[in-house]
Amino acid sequence: MKALVYHGPKKVSVDSVPDPKIEKHTDVIIKLTTTNICGSDLHMYEGRTDVEKGKILGHENLGEVVEVGKAVDTVKKGDKVVLPFNIGCGFCQNCERGLSGYCLTCADPTVMPGMAGAAYGFAGMGPYSGGQAQYLRVPYADYNCLQLPADATEKENDYVMLSDIFPTGWHSTRLAQLEPGQSIVIYGAGPVGLMATLSAKIQGASQIFVVDDIPERLALAEKLGAKTFHTKDDKVGDQIRALTNGLGADCGAECIGYQCHNAAGKEVPNLVMNSLVDSVKATGVLGVIGVFIPQDPGAEDKLAKVGQIAFDFGKFWFKGMKMATGQCNVKAYNRRLRDLIHHGKANPSMIVSHELPLEEAPNAYKHFDNRDKGWTKVLLHPNAA
Amino acid sequence: MKALVYHGPKKVSVDSVPDPKIEKHTDVIIKLTTTNICGSDLHMYEGRTDVEKGKILGHENLGEVVEVGKAVDTVKKGDKVVLPFNIGCGFCQNCERGLSGYCLTCADPTVMPGMAGAAYGFAGMGPYSGGQAQYLRVPYADYNCLQLPADATEKENDYVMLSDIFPTGWHSTRLAQLEPGQSIVIYGAGPVGLMATLSAKIQGASQIFVVDDIPERLALAEKLGAKTFHTKDDKVGDQIRALTNGLGADCGAECIGYQCHNAAGKEVPNLVMNSLVDSVKATGVLGVIGVFIPQDPGAEDKLAKVGQIAFDFGKFWFKGMKMATGQCNVKAYNRRLRDLIHHGKANPSMIVSHELPLEEAPNAYKHFDNRDKGWTKVLLHPNAA
Amino acid sequence: MKALVYHGPKKVSVDSVPDPKIEKHTDVIIKLTTTNICGSDLHMYEGRTDVEKGKILGHENLGEVVEVGKAVDTVKKGDKVVLPFNIGCGFCQNCERGLSGYCLTCADPTVMPGMAGAAYGFAGMGPYSGGQAQYLRVPYADYNCLQLPADATEKENDYVMLSDIFPTGWHSTRLAQLEPGQSIVIYGAGPVGLMATLSAKIQGASQIFVVDDIPERLALAEKLGAKTFHTKDDKVGDQIRALTNGLGADCGAECIGYQCHNAAGKEVPNLVMNSLVDSVKATGVLGVIGVFIPQDPGAEDKLAKVGQIAFDFGKFWFKGMKMATGQCNVKAYNRRLRDLIHHGKANPSMIVSHELPLEEAPNAYKHFDNRDKGWTKVLLHPNAA
Amino acid sequence: MKALVYHGPKKVSVDSVPDPKIEKHTDVIIKLTTTNICGSDLHMYEGRTDVEKGKILGHENLGEVVEVGKAVDTVKKGDKVVLPFNIGCGFCQNCERGLSGYCLTCADPTVMPGMAGAAYGFAGMGPYSGGQAQYLRVPYADYNCLQLPADATEKENDYVMLSDIFPTGWHSTRLAQLEPGQSIVIYGAGPVGLMATLSAKIQGASQIFVVDDIPERLALAEKLGAKTFHTKDDKVGDQIRALTNGLGADCGAECIGYQCHNAAGKEVPNLVMNSLVDSVKATGVLGVIGVFIPQDPGAEDKLAKVGQIAFDFGKFWFKGMKMATGQCNVKAYNRRLRDLIHHGKANPSMIVSHELPLEEAPNAYKHFDNRDKGWTKVLLHPNAA
Repeated sequence: MKALVYHGPKKVSVDSVPDPKIEKHTDVIIKLTTTNICGSDLHMYEGRTDVEKGKILGHENLGEVVEVGKAVDTVKKGDKVVLPFNIGCGFCQNCERGLSGYCLTCADPTVMPGMAGAAYGFAGMGPYSGGQAQYLRVPYADYNCLQLPADATEKENDYVMLSDIFPTGWHSTRLAQLEPGQSIVIYGAGPVGLMATLSAKIQGASQIFVVDDIPERLALAEKLGAKTFHTKDDKVGDQIRALTNGLGADCGAECIGYQCHNAAGKEVPNLVMNSLVDSVKATGVLGVIGVFIPQDPGAEDKLAKVGQIAFDFGKFWFKGMKMATGQCNVKAYNRRLRDLIHHGKANPSMIVSHELPLEEAPNAYKHFDNRDKGWTKVLLHPNAA
Repeated sequence: MKALVYHGPKKVSVDSVPDPKIEKHTDVIIKLTTTNICGSDLHMYEGRTDVEKGKILGHENLGEVVEVGKAVDTVKKGDKVVLPFNIGCGFCQNCERGLSGYCLTCADPTVMPGMAGAAYGFAGMGPYSGGQAQYLRVPYADYNCLQLPADATEKENDYVMLSDIFPTGWHSTRLAQLEPGQSIVIYGAGPVGLMATLSAKIQGASQIFVVDDIPERLALAEKLGAKTFHTKDDKVGDQIRALTNGLGADCGAECIGYQCHNAAGKEVPNLVMNSLVDSVKATGVLGVIGVFIPQDPGAEDKLAKVGQIAFDFGKFWFKGMKMATGQCNVKAYNRRLRDLIHHGKANPSMIVSHELPLEEAPNAYKHFDNRDKGWTKVLLHPNAA
Repeated sequence: MKALVYHGPKKVSVDSVPDPKIEKHTDVIIKLTTTNICGSDLHMYEGRTDVEKGKILGHENLGEVVEVGKAVDTVKKGDKVVLPFNIGCGFCQNCERGLSGYCLTCADPTVMPGMAGAAYGFAGMGPYSGGQAQYLRVPYADYNCLQLPADATEKENDYVMLSDIFPTGWHSTRLAQLEPGQSIVIYGAGPVGLMATLSAKIQGASQIFVVDDIPERLALAEKLGAKTFHTKDDKVGDQIRALTNGLGADCGAECIGYQCHNAAGKEVPNLVMNSLVDSVKATGVLGVIGVFIPQDPGAEDKLAKVGQIAFDFGKFWFKGMKMATGQCNVKAYNRRLRDLIHHGKANPSMIVSHELPLEEAPNAYKHFDNRDKGWTKVLLHPNAA
Repeated sequence: MKALVYHGPKKVSVDSVPDPKIEKHTDVIIKLTTTNICGSDLHMYEGRTDVEKGKILGHENLGEVVEVGKAVDTVKKGDKVVLPFNIGCGFCQNCERGLSGYCLTCADPTVMPGMAGAAYGFAGMGPYSGGQAQYLRVPYADYNCLQLPADATEKENDYVMLSDIFPTGWHSTRLAQLEPGQSIVIYGAGPVGLMATLSAKIQGASQIFVVDDIPERLALAEKLGAKTFHTKDDKVGDQIRALTNGLGADCGAECIGYQCHNAAGKEVPNLVMNSLVDSVKATGVLGVIGVFIPQDPGAEDKLAKVGQIAFDFGKFWFKGMKMATGQCNVKAYNRRLRDLIHHGKANPSMIVSHELPLEEAPNAYKHFDNRDKGWTKVLLHPNAA
């Protein structure tokens, strides 16, 4: 089959590789109809991780079941399914509590003591191949496949967002403990930040503040009802306090991660976190789903090299704040978000900018990595006619 | 009346000062029978804060009501009451949600944008006098007085702990979201750390790990059923993982604060937080009640001067951890902890080392500040016969 | 002043009565600009309660502060405020936990052992006069007044709904533990049921099912996006299961109360509760805010006379269901719902059918009690020019 | 192999039956070393259910894994495991949220629309054989087996309680939302009621009230620190209010079920529920784990025949109470309760009265069903030497 393979920093190509096979009785094989490029794929593409050469990338996957292992009970050949980017077993002590992003069975324990979590086609997340390909092996299929209703094909561009960015944006608002009627400030208006904005809207936020430095992204956030601020704006914290009786936003979401940069384009790893501590009210909660990593040898910042940030902890403590972090447990949300799409209450595909055949993937990676204007979100259709 | 007055770094004396008076109809005056010296009093005593000279210190107060404002409804003359160290109004948007430590009505808003919270005799927490004195004015008395049952005098040394350290230790375990059957690691075996240990025991923890560098404190923690580690011990995180199926403790409590130091006695402000990130499992929660401050000009550490720590944020994020911080909302717990004392299920006075008349306070401050052996917790009885 | 006074079953009139006065330093007096007639006023109007003759009715009140007690701190003369129908003290053991509908200080303890809760102008809820009048005394004004923003007058018909029916409808969905993306079935499309429908919509329900027997009410529910069923419809439970993968609605709300009746108009007190047990899925939660009463001597049903219903408890238990009941703690929601109105995200006034001067109140009671067509929700403006 | 087989009301015998076999790749077979008789087995034994003749009973099972299906990953031959009485798949929409007692995959959907949940050897809970036998087939073994530590054999009588009654008693306190420092009233001091008492003690209740009519059971409850009341005692509600400042217990647990009877021995199905409504405070929560059933044709009470009780719903509503019901999701608790046993914090075997070989099972059923003095809890050891 054809697949997008990583060969080194900024080197990817579509190669012929062996088809995946049922390896365990609990597996299924799916034929991909849509698979996306994610902002976190760029961490690998840029060589900021230790991902092995030869890896097939791609963790935002939707397709049709074409082969079913003997111990699979509820997933059937022909089912249209979307897969969480996390791979979980369903029975370890984390999965059984809904922490499917921190599976102990599927994780690679050599990465870090106490390491948990696995994903398709990702650095440090186990040996699993990605889905930017024609076919994909899905472990523990009964647990990892979300079946789609009759409008699966019609709304495929919406449903594929259930694999990662819609639940991940949603997760940022849940980690932040947003409640209806409250205000939230979201840093980052990339695909995940926009999904956080959509999520806050669906959940009944009274005010949504979004901060970014790309005007076209801010325009999309405004379409979703947000009040936006450009990174360069004077004292965003003061402006937000002025709109919230002097207190600050009720809660905040970090949707950018370790490569955040100031208005001059320089990476300043603690910039967003400390801005959030400033712009959120005392007793507020921060939800952090932008990726931060335990070491980043290529960083310029001394602390960043060893995975640290200079954090305004005194202020954070004095304000009695809370923070919750980490990758999204997709299964915690994907059924209900599917139902919102199915019943016409959510349209996450609004951010799609490109739909391309698999062959165009290397070119798309280049544009997306350059933050080229208009390349907001790319969908690949590997088996399109 | 007599009161303990701050006159500058390491200078306190018992002076004659004017008696407090009813200033608003919602006030009462109490005659103190017990008032404690708290570890956080030492921050002021040592000159690490900007507390004004002439301030009466003391925020752990218990006494008898001797005068009652005209708008007070449920507190009566003669009632024996213990006071939360926080002063709240009961009706602002934080108090009405139980966040009595972040009162917006009683706070001094000039301290910081969005500042919240007030306390007796404390730097930056409003103009309120402390209770290391014969009498004390209590604002919003119906809200701030907790009435004590018939055994008030008999168990006075237990009940006085409801003013601060017992709820504060308890708070660290609630912020950490400890559940019965889980394990917890507690950094710090000072009075608050020991109260955290007692709290974890009452709540049914399966394993309690305590880390400190003072053997007599660790001995008290062991009495409470904890397994203890000396700060110098090799790789505490690895030892804890070995006792928890390789995962790390289920949650952790920080009960030390910004003056934490390494085994050599040097202040290393990020030491405890980063140790907690290591020794707690992926998806675990940290409860941080040790005080960290927004600026500390006297600190040697460059980041500490501006209230920052070099925080292992990449590891924290990768492990999907959470953290909750800040001073305790005493009213969230004090009724139920009172009931535990009353019904013989909790004896927080077990840590009391000294009971002294008010006149001995300056001497007690000196010993407590020197961390002199045996000076674990000092109670003053200002109106003793 | 003029006020609507109860004189016996179906006998109310607008009388001249003495003006209210500041009785305690914590009181304020408000001049009413809007006050509503509530469905629960009809329980008293119809003589189904033991409310005393001479009582001024009215618990949905909004007005301007005209006099302020000496111990009131944050409410000022001239403030436009809306009042929760509950009266709370802010400091008892229930109020301090946000259970402002179950105040122990303001309650009349002679009603029932362990009784809690107070309200303006209501049977069994303490000696407080109602607000269907020109002026009203508000106890514990700092706690009980919600201040309104600059658009107070412009959106007065929306804001007045914060006194009761909007938070009460909202409460039914919170008691039912509705989560975004879930489905809910709501029994009753009267004012409160419609507010429950609006609340479910704001909170991101994927499907809202509403059951009632009045077509014009169902039409309003449909406007809010609900799928509706007439009480006479065949097997509503089966129809709902067909729309929810055979499982039933995720949760349910009871917005009718003890006078619920079947399609033939006969009161059948257990009808709605047992229908909810049927139409909600196993493990689902029921939120019950329709009023049920401890005794109802005038009822025809034998069990109803002693406050009982023949409840399908075996089925309820087998399905592992939960239920939460009782009057709304308005303060738990009113700030945030105010913010939703202020920021244009909620318009509860959509259900208003009549705006009348106080003098028209007796006539309005008659029409409302007759369930006359078009009399959905009546607002009185007692001090209109 | 030998197994205890049901042949009709009060007719059970130990018969030779075929050995169980691996039927699906996700199964294991265990050799039972301990299996208990449960109070709910008596519902079947007495003929109050429609359980089919020929059924092997027994849902409290512990044993050693002797055969492992090909798709099982973490359970190994030789592992000592205890099994939740519920059978779950781990991946359906209920199991994935921890509602393992309401599995949709393993349930028998013909029992009731929306039916969920399965169990070993139980009426209406699917086709699964019970474990009062030498061997047992365990479906979805990775999900359903809880592995035991090195002291498995030494503490076998404690660990076997993890199959049902310890988690079920615990569940009643969690459904009741007991918090540390609160009081709880528990109706029933049978095995489950005693486990509820033990659970409340471990969780730091300040007062535990237990009501039953068998003195030797009450004596065991007192050993656990409870204050006890005999069913015949005058006005238990008033007595409890006198011990709780006039309010009533903070929460309550129902541990008896539909066969509850008054002091005269007559079944009165609504007796306990209505007593709980009386003895628990306004805003309190009831946890109901005693079994109630959708129909009971053999009952004398008219309402009970159709699964109803005459419930004090008016009082329940007026007091703003909540209630949660249903069988325990054992997996929600069993790991942590195992750790409490392992670390010496819980000894549920304290209630064991008899340890017998399998052959004695019919005799034990007879004594247990007669409520013969001293027959508190019977353990069978089917493969004892």
